[in-house]
Amino acid sequence: MGMTMTQKILAAHAGLDSVQAGQLIEADLDLVLGNDITSPVAIHEIEKMKVDGVFHKDKIALVMDHFVPNKDIKSAQHCKCVREFACKNEITNYFDVGEMGIEHALLPEKGLTVAGDVIIGADSHTCTYGALGAFSTGVGSTDMAAGMATGKAWFKVPSAIKFNITGKPAPWISGKDVILHIIGMIGVDGALYKSMEFVGDGIRYLSMDDRFTIANMAIEAGGKNGIFPVDEKAEAYMKEHSKRPYKVYEADEDAVYDEEYTIDLSTLRPTVAFPHLPENTKTIDEVGDITIDQVVIGSCTNGRLDDLKIAASILKGKKVKKGLRVIVIPATQQIYLDAMEAGYIRTFIEAGAIVSTPTCGPCLGGYMGILAENERCVSTTNRNFVGRMGHVDSEIYLASPAVAAASAITGKISSPEEV
Amino acid sequence: MGMTMTQKILAAHAGLDSVQAGQLIEADLDLVLGNDITSPVAIHEIEKMKVDGVFHKDKIALVMDHFVPNKDIKSAQHCKCVREFACKNEITNYFDVGEMGIEHALLPEKGLTVAGDVIIGADSHTCTYGALGAFSTGVGSTDMAAGMATGKAWFKVPSAIKFNITGKPAPWISGKDVILHIIGMIGVDGALYKSMEFVGDGIRYLSMDDRFTIANMAIEAGGKNGIFPVDEKAEAYMKEHSKRPYKVYEADEDAVYDEEYTIDLSTLRPTVAFPHLPENTKTIDEVGDITIDQVVIGSCTNGRLDDLKIAASILKGKKVKKGLRVIVIPATQQIYLDAMEAGYIRTFIEAGAIVSTPTCGPCLGGYMGILAENERCVSTTNRNFVGRMGHVDSEIYLASPAVAAASAITGKISSPEEV
Repeated sequence: MGMTMTQKILAAHAGLDSVQAGQLIEADLDLVLGNDITSPVAIHEIEKMKVDGVFHKDKIALVMDHFVPNKDIKSAQHCKCVREFACKNEITNYFDVGEMGIEHALLPEKGLTVAGDVIIGADSHTCTYGALGAFSTGVGSTDMAAGMATGKAWFKVPSAIKFNITGKPAPWISGKDVILHIIGMIGVDGALYKSMEFVGDGIRYLSMDDRFTIANMAIEAGGKNGIFPVDEKAEAYMKEHSKRPYKVYEADEDAVYDEEYTIDLSTLRPTVAFPHLPENTKTIDEVGDITIDQVVIGSCTNGRLDDLKIAASILKGKKVKKGLRVIVIPATQQIYLDAMEAGYIRTFIEAGAIVSTPTCGPCLGGYMGILAENERCVSTTNRNFVGRMGHVDSEIYLASPAVAAASAITGKISSPEEV
Repeated sequence: MGMTMTQKILAAHAGLDSVQAGQLIEADLDLVLGNDITSPVAIHEIEKMKVDGVFHKDKIALVMDHFVPNKDIKSAQHCKCVREFACKNEITNYFDVGEMGIEHALLPEKGLTVAGDVIIGADSHTCTYGALGAFSTGVGSTDMAAGMATGKAWFKVPSAIKFNITGKPAPWISGKDVILHIIGMIGVDGALYKSMEFVGDGIRYLSMDDRFTIANMAIEAGGKNGIFPVDEKAEAYMKEHSKRPYKVYEADEDAVYDEEYTIDLSTLRPTVAFPHLPENTKTIDEVGDITIDQVVIGSCTNGRLDDLKIAASILKGKKVKKGLRVIVIPATQQIYLDAMEAGYIRTFIEAGAIVSTPTCGPCLGGYMGILAENERCVSTTNRNFVGRMGHVDSEIYLASPAVAAASAITGKISSPEEV
């Protein structure tokens, strides 16, 4: 029986000729990731194991990004714990203030994730690296601890859903619209514990940043992982950013999929997920009159250079609606520099937005833009659960950077075509 | 009996020919200031007064700067309260995300504070505007409420200490070194309820940003206010930033001072205030070997363009010491833009520092760089009290931007001459 992309990667990392859905395997890990929230718990666990250090000091990435620069004493204590662990174990890829960035933007940029890898991370959006043709998935802190100690993790081999991406994107359609459309179609548990395998000749029209956004939100449909084939764009990205060798795995012709969907990019409309689930999608035409209090453009989902570029192109020479707070968060220091060089940062500030240092901050209700009672936010982040960005009676509308920027000008959820 | 600068301003605003120290007066207010921490309390009080609105919608400034963009639900609720009050009362000078800046940098920049003004603010560093020849002082939230309602405040006329500033500053000496030297000399209660009146031919060597820093920290010596004579530099600043008429008050020849001190700028050395009081000063030669974990360059004391310029000149082409967190916070959006235009922001990021959106943040333990147990920070802020920036067992060393930048390179408290 043929294997999917994901199954082929897992088989190779388990030392097996083939695997099939449902099989329990133990796989070698190319990278184990943790952040400032999840790593302290993992460190506490690994210390209980009484192992002699970590499996490989170059294959662990500890990224301080959620509440950094520290938002309170507790987060400062957590970072201190991780910093000391990284120092003691000589972890090569420890990223703190100054070298920082949001983990899922930072690791590909630093060349730490490439095609063919098996990566676990104690963060649910670890699935992002599937954009490069890697198998990557989120785990809990205790699995992270075991991974750091042994370099291995067990997996139940996932079955798969095939998403056949066709056509050329309609104007203003980005990766965010694609994945919101898919989640709206299959629901937040539509891909539960399954691989979301994206194929088709429409992919060539999607930039790497679009693909990162799509893979990033696989978890929002319940997916175990999301994965793209490796094409010229992906190879160019890896060659630019990484010195690590990569390996391309292609699905067998006779690979088995639980379901297959076709998404014609030319038919999509800018899409918004209404409170309080990412599956509550409407196209921009169906949105109606929703006034807003805040706009956030950033996160591991949409804080990359393409995202800032499109937002800047819409805000250029325009002014943010009076009374609206607009917060732009480049995802890494490099993206910040590149955006500054390109003039985007100036555009944002002159429009009346503010630009934050890289952080996850508001996405998970951390800091840097928390919502009060009855406030509404259009956000390019990934989750709009009840209370996710602040008060239990606040609302989050998930959208693309283009929709977010247009809404920043009008003060209500708007199409980029309107401004 | 002659009057001091401060007494002349107060007499004029009380409708009196003369006042003397200790006299209780009621003075007309040119500006009443509050921020996101203090304004909600004042608004609560003014609502209890059942007055019909505020005394003057153009003479109130409400600046959201301490925990903005909001760091948590509570601060979001506070800002919402102020925002709604500002909207209801049509407050002209309401500053929120996007138009934001740290209040004491923002108001002079926006031209809202000029020579001869009487200004109260529900923030202790309201004394900053004395740099422009205004009488300005910090009050509690209830006084702010009364001020907003009536446009008046009562004062006990302060006596004064004269600081005769002479000589040309030695290399690397900035306003911060001057005021730390003074506080070290007279103590944190050395000017309790007194005017600190700065005079002398050395003042011409001090930039406006130096003077803002000095006046800003008058409160750290217990001063009721700090005030400078209005010279060409001050007039040029006001003409550039404000359309308001200003009035220059000079001290009488026979004005009475409780004490007089002479500070020869040519003899000063870069000065650092050790934990846990601003009076615990040492010159850089006396500091010894103090390794640090974090550097903060910013705040209402030292987040202005001159401050960033000197820090950038030291960090240019250099790297922040490995393991150190360096946080740079331009005090206003305009300073951020100007610093970007001048290349300072790029310098900071390339050196390995991070640049925050304008906020008071870490200075008062709010967010954006809180300290863990046993951590040490060199900070250009104004207070190094126990637990001020985080854990009760952390330490803050107050210094100039030059010393902070030099320390960022070496990882210990250092003179700019060393790097």
